[in-house]
Amino acid sequence: MLKNYHVWMCTMTLKIELEEKAQVFNHFWIRYLEEQPPVSLYQASRHLPQSGGKRLRPVLTMVACESVGGTAEHTFPFAAALEFMHNFTLVHDDIMDHSHLRRNVPTVHVEYGEPTAILAGDLLFAKSFEAMHDLEVSPAVFKTLERELIQCIVDICEGQQWDMEFEQRNTVSEREYMTMIEKKTGVLFRLSSRGGGMIGEGTAEEIDALTTYGSHLGLAFQIWDDYLDMSSDEATLGKDIGNDIRNGKKTLIAVHAFEHATGDDQTLITKVFGHQQATNEDIRHVLDAFQSSGSIQYAKDVARRYHDEALQVLHVLPVSDARHILEDLVSFAIERKT
Amino acid sequence: MLKNYHVWMCTMTLKIELEEKAQVFNHFWIRYLEEQPPVSLYQASRHLPQSGGKRLRPVLTMVACESVGGTAEHTFPFAAALEFMHNFTLVHDDIMDHSHLRRNVPTVHVEYGEPTAILAGDLLFAKSFEAMHDLEVSPAVFKTLERELIQCIVDICEGQQWDMEFEQRNTVSEREYMTMIEKKTGVLFRLSSRGGGMIGEGTAEEIDALTTYGSHLGLAFQIWDDYLDMSSDEATLGKDIGNDIRNGKKTLIAVHAFEHATGDDQTLITKVFGHQQATNEDIRHVLDAFQSSGSIQYAKDVARRYHDEALQVLHVLPVSDARHILEDLVSFAIERKT
Repeated sequence: MLKNYHVWMCTMTLKIELEEKAQVFNHFWIRYLEEQPPVSLYQASRHLPQSGGKRLRPVLTMVACESVGGTAEHTFPFAAALEFMHNFTLVHDDIMDHSHLRRNVPTVHVEYGEPTAILAGDLLFAKSFEAMHDLEVSPAVFKTLERELIQCIVDICEGQQWDMEFEQRNTVSEREYMTMIEKKTGVLFRLSSRGGGMIGEGTAEEIDALTTYGSHLGLAFQIWDDYLDMSSDEATLGKDIGNDIRNGKKTLIAVHAFEHATGDDQTLITKVFGHQQATNEDIRHVLDAFQSSGSIQYAKDVARRYHDEALQVLHVLPVSDARHILEDLVSFAIERKT
Repeated sequence: MLKNYHVWMCTMTLKIELEEKAQVFNHFWIRYLEEQPPVSLYQASRHLPQSGGKRLRPVLTMVACESVGGTAEHTFPFAAALEFMHNFTLVHDDIMDHSHLRRNVPTVHVEYGEPTAILAGDLLFAKSFEAMHDLEVSPAVFKTLERELIQCIVDICEGQQWDMEFEQRNTVSEREYMTMIEKKTGVLFRLSSRGGGMIGEGTAEEIDALTTYGSHLGLAFQIWDDYLDMSSDEATLGKDIGNDIRNGKKTLIAVHAFEHATGDDQTLITKVFGHQQATNEDIRHVLDAFQSSGSIQYAKDVARRYHDEALQVLHVLPVSDARHILEDLVSFAIERKT
């Protein structure tokens, strides 16, 4: 009971900390998208940024910077670049995945049409580099950070292509799945944390630790995200429930279940998975099958392993409020309900 | 007879010069898109670059650099950045405009599907910045060039949005049309020429002249492009003939015709323009109406005016082979048949 209360208090404190940081960042960030003609393009570009979101990547950058003794504000343009990049990929991914809802509101292409949504994504992409140019660091650090940001985008494009191709394939190995989410999610978390350490002028050892931390946090986060999509209802998560199952999306849970489900469960999964016409009842049965094959538990365990490894490397950093937030953040990644 | 022979010789010489330069550039450029997993993404990204194209922007950069005494090879990474940017916008524009053919081959989304085409465009976008980072100039020049490149993309996105919005509108003024093509085409030509001058370390006056030249060349080129689309057949141009008319695209010709056509011609244009179901015969009649309203001649005259102004500013540059090529290039822009 006491332990639960402690967890609850930690979570509440962390949430407030994160929200405060996110709000300061939002204030800085949204100025890059001031409404101007052609108004519909700028409205479409602001649509996702303004519909909420946890700003995990910018907050991670800010806290990582502080954890090595730097000043959070110095990271803002870089944090903005990362968040623009993240939002751009979401806008384009939603078109590719035919997603109708994100953060509980209609996706950009549903609201503004596909052509303007493609353009809005492109504009957010450009804004990412615009923000980078407001970063005040040495030319050498600027070039390193920007080069790594570019590599991130290349990785994210490759990851998204793998993700789509996996939907068309019958089997995907766990190793292939991990490569895909490393590219699609891990690299941007990795650079958020690493970049914060670099801007904060941490030591090589500290920057290495933050690099590993960011990557593991991202993977824990992504695997937990897939888990949430299989366990929450639409109202909680703001995504089309069962969308992943109907699209045949190869999450870690699905990859595990395809390998380990037996008998009727196996038949059912094969029949329903990847079929757009599957009913809500079909979806429910598949979720039950994922449960009995131990796949949902397996994904939770893997997420926890990344959590543990992320926590482990933080010992390199000096004890500070910022380090505590990083510790809480990775716990939040695998305990959150949304 | 003699004059025609001279023009023909100039055109042939220029074509050979341009093709030679384009080939050297292609050899450098395509390495950024080496085939690797996921293969389909890289194949989709190479599809448009490998299907030909005049490489006008890179060649312009190379020649502009030489015209101020610089070495063309130094511009290659920057020229690659511009050409990647141009190709990225074409891939995405073709999706938005539902175009099926470009450079006589199926467009990327027709060949690889929309999702992979969106991603291929994004990858080309990222590759533009990857190429920038191989440019060997001072940090200050790098930042200026990259900042201007970013502004170009913002402008191009805005221009494309205007272009699409104009299709839905009944009237568009000539001024609005000019703003749109300045953003959509003018800015990238402008930066190609200007950037070449900067990398070649031209004087401020020379760089100003090349900036104006590039902008005017781009506008002449774009207006001539619209003209070609209204006057050539599909086999010559490699685009869906009449596509612009069926989509209700507001070219300078259309803008002029809407204002100046009278009687039956006006009725006909209003009836056919912007209607997807228009027959080839309808399209032919609209083209006749554009002719009798003087709109096709008007567009040719405007293109020629930009040609003249572009030629004019070149006097600032020392006489050289490179300057001759720039002179020939702008003439080619308004004399070419494809």
